[in-house]
Amino acid sequence: MILIKFGGSVITDKSRYRTFNQERVRELCKEIKESGEKVIVVHGAGSFGHVLAKENRLNDGFKSTSQIPAVAQVCYDMRELNSMIVKELNDAGLPAISVPTGSCYMMEDRRLLMDRTDVLKTMFDKGLIPVMFGDVTMDWKLGFAICSGDQIMELLTKVFKPTRVIFVSDIDGLYDKDPKTNEDAVLIEEVTKKSLETARTDITVDDVTGGVREKMEIMLRICSEGCDCILMNGNVDGRLLSLLKGEEVPCTIARKGRI
Amino acid sequence: MILIKFGGSVITDKSRYRTFNQERVRELCKEIKESGEKVIVVHGAGSFGHVLAKENRLNDGFKSTSQIPAVAQVCYDMRELNSMIVKELNDAGLPAISVPTGSCYMMEDRRLLMDRTDVLKTMFDKGLIPVMFGDVTMDWKLGFAICSGDQIMELLTKVFKPTRVIFVSDIDGLYDKDPKTNEDAVLIEEVTKKSLETARTDITVDDVTGGVREKMEIMLRICSEGCDCILMNGNVDGRLLSLLKGEEVPCTIARKGRI
Repeated sequence: MILIKFGGSVITDKSRYRTFNQERVRELCKEIKESGEKVIVVHGAGSFGHVLAKENRLNDGFKSTSQIPAVAQVCYDMRELNSMIVKELNDAGLPAISVPTGSCYMMEDRRLLMDRTDVLKTMFDKGLIPVMFGDVTMDWKLGFAICSGDQIMELLTKVFKPTRVIFVSDIDGLYDKDPKTNEDAVLIEEVTKKSLETARTDITVDDVTGGVREKMEIMLRICSEGCDCILMNGNVDGRLLSLLKGEEVPCTIARKGRI
Repeated sequence: MILIKFGGSVITDKSRYRTFNQERVRELCKEIKESGEKVIVVHGAGSFGHVLAKENRLNDGFKSTSQIPAVAQVCYDMRELNSMIVKELNDAGLPAISVPTGSCYMMEDRRLLMDRTDVLKTMFDKGLIPVMFGDVTMDWKLGFAICSGDQIMELLTKVFKPTRVIFVSDIDGLYDKDPKTNEDAVLIEEVTKKSLETARTDITVDDVTGGVREKMEIMLRICSEGCDCILMNGNVDGRLLSLLKGEEVPCTIARKGRI
């Protein structure tokens, strides 16, 4: 199976609170269906989660009861976004069910405890696609905190042993400089431990909390579980389908057995 | 704390697929807020769940892959209903978070395994209202099946030890005959083991899968956990508030220590 993350910058307009990119998501779902591959989908928060979460410092954990309505609102907004994505999957002929991270799991000091996978595995075995997402999640130590979609991707990789893990982003891959402000930025086609050593720490990418360096670290950790891990551009029609069919597309890849 | 179930017949128009009674739910949420009581809310399926679930015999368990899109659709519809209820709770100043039964728990031969309550308890401790509902739920034996809201109520009673458990229905309580077709039907004010012995089995009530007899059995089981269990009419403005304030209202009650 293939594990796919829809980045927040692809599925939402990150500059406007609660703006869903329906057409983009519809296209991605159509391409997954056409590929015939079995997948599990995770998605980010984009403009549905980050604004209010930041304003109310939800990732700092429980500080005051004044944060509680914001916890409820961010959870509500994220489930609304999730519902729209599940609907697009269903409409494309990919039967999907929402599995909200914060409703199902605890964290311990911002580390997700995915201690039970029975529901996820049973859904998948029956031909259903569980759809998880970055979410406010209760935390044994902090009360609550934010669980990122990337963290869910890492844990699902351990559980489902996918052949490939794909991060669908709004850029072709990782660059040596910020491609939005530098015309001579070069795409990093392959991430290795060596490239990590020389990566600059000041370049941000996609909606990632952290930058290129952090994304490389996540890709290498996922890759070390025995699968290729790919970062690609979901804003180009047909590119996800090409990748799923095994064709070469512009992207950044961490190859299994090469790190 | 008080455990409240919004029956499917109160929160939806049971005769029309996916029709939400927003005004009714708004009023009930307002009354809970006004009471100042700490609550947990469960709700039924009504016209959002029963139609498709029945058509595709989802409660018989997995029989064929042709059921799978219906499983996804019923789960989607239920989460939509749930989202509308969570929104009304939030808008009334009661911070609430969806906890979808089928995303979080397994069943074993139609028996819900609520083996972990850490997320529910942490939410409640932080001042959040977890909102569960009747749902298609994965089942170790059957593949999947329907988990009823009533079953969730029983288990949450064991977990949270509420002082009172309230079933909000569309009738004043249980009757000795069907009150919708018999003018001389008499309200059963108190349910005891004795009343169960003489109860007729052919009278249906509310949206209950089963009839008066089955509802009595559930009320007595809940009551045996050490709390009053009450069935009341949520279609009468102010009645839930009166009940929460400890006033006498028309209802059917199973009293702790009296069974």
